[in-house]
Amino acid sequence: MAVLEKTQMLSDGKDKTIYNTTDPDIYLMEFKNSVTTNDGEKRDEITGKGHVNNEISSLLFERINGIDIKTHFIKKISDTEQLIKKLYIIPIEVVVRNYIAGSLVRRLGLDEGTPLYEPILEFYYKDDELGDPMINTDHIRILDIISQETEGEIKEIAFMVNETLNQIFSRIGITLVDVKLEFGLDIKGNIILADEITPDTCRLWDIETGKKLDKDIYRRNMGDMMLGYREVLSRLKSIRT
Amino acid sequence: MAVLEKTQMLSDGKDKTIYNTTDPDIYLMEFKNSVTTNDGEKRDEITGKGHVNNEISSLLFERINGIDIKTHFIKKISDTEQLIKKLYIIPIEVVVRNYIAGSLVRRLGLDEGTPLYEPILEFYYKDDELGDPMINTDHIRILDIISQETEGEIKEIAFMVNETLNQIFSRIGITLVDVKLEFGLDIKGNIILADEITPDTCRLWDIETGKKLDKDIYRRNMGDMMLGYREVLSRLKSIRT
Repeated sequence: MAVLEKTQMLSDGKDKTIYNTTDPDIYLMEFKNSVTTNDGEKRDEITGKGHVNNEISSLLFERINGIDIKTHFIKKISDTEQLIKKLYIIPIEVVVRNYIAGSLVRRLGLDEGTPLYEPILEFYYKDDELGDPMINTDHIRILDIISQETEGEIKEIAFMVNETLNQIFSRIGITLVDVKLEFGLDIKGNIILADEITPDTCRLWDIETGKKLDKDIYRRNMGDMMLGYREVLSRLKSIRT
Repeated sequence: MAVLEKTQMLSDGKDKTIYNTTDPDIYLMEFKNSVTTNDGEKRDEITGKGHVNNEISSLLFERINGIDIKTHFIKKISDTEQLIKKLYIIPIEVVVRNYIAGSLVRRLGLDEGTPLYEPILEFYYKDDELGDPMINTDHIRILDIISQETEGEIKEIAFMVNETLNQIFSRIGITLVDVKLEFGLDIKGNIILADEITPDTCRLWDIETGKKLDKDIYRRNMGDMMLGYREVLSRLKSIRT
């Protein structure tokens, strides 16, 4: 690859900034230290978060690239930066759950930590103004975001990614409670796993103790979130080939 | 049918009271004059509401009984009372929509009155404490309410009921914007249309003027809701065979 430099900023999100680069097919994604709750009530800068999340996500995307799933991840190029493929991002968040937690506790009135006998999936419409509402298959049709076929393929890939992550995390003594995935389409119409996979976007519990190692530490004021994030990274590194 | 009398009260809902009767297979359903908003912020007694809703629902259920759809409706026995079949009520509300309105405006940020190129369907979990949350197919599996097969049949019946109602209402110059349906299972496991179909549970707009003839008049403080409800009843009676 020729020397590649970041050019103008494309989007400045809550957790990441995306830049154009000198290669028109490649973006540069920078992980930020900022952390916020979804409702925007809390917002902080946490030293080291961008670095740790970039490392965790890079390790996990490398593993997913290694099986038969296409992702946007190209390579990590600095502590907080990685190169990714340019995609059209589908404005849907795909949540796969293995245990009851988070909004599902409130929605169904079931206990946090209840195991699901098989993984389940939810779609959310990515729209800050609407508060990222849950949507069903019929709503996806109305919004005319993706075809029914693409929706089916995304579900299939999401469950495969979840299964892969389950295998990785169970090897390092971590329960994957749930994970939020995002997808994009490349210029050929391929469905590509995008965004990040980090303790910001997964719920991760220590298998032995049930201790939370994810953003719920921050959401619920349970102490230093970076202790959890660093624990996840250190265990992931221990199984790196 | 032998003389049948109501015995003890079985449930006292917001809009209707259900009684046991001297026939163990039959309930008596009484329509009340009370009206409330879903959030419980407004509550009123509206003279004549129970009577008009009992008449509207009886007419519509008679029509649906007349096609190949099983309902709980047996017969109207007084101004505000009807006999219904005893069922196990499935704790799911099924909403079929032909136009964008109500919660869908807020969920998807689309304009009220936008036509849908085909009807869509949503499931809500009937649970007052949880605020009747929207649920998806996977949530129905978790809650273990109904089988996947029953869910498919309910969807099919719901679209058929919607189509029948569309035909009835369009003949009397009314647009059926959306309708909330409830279903039960009889002792043989048959899926039976239950509850009521009234301006409390449908959005009904005059085709010519767009004027609301349903509970939104009350929800939005748009005047005397009974003018709308009586208009619906009077037009329905005009096509009665």
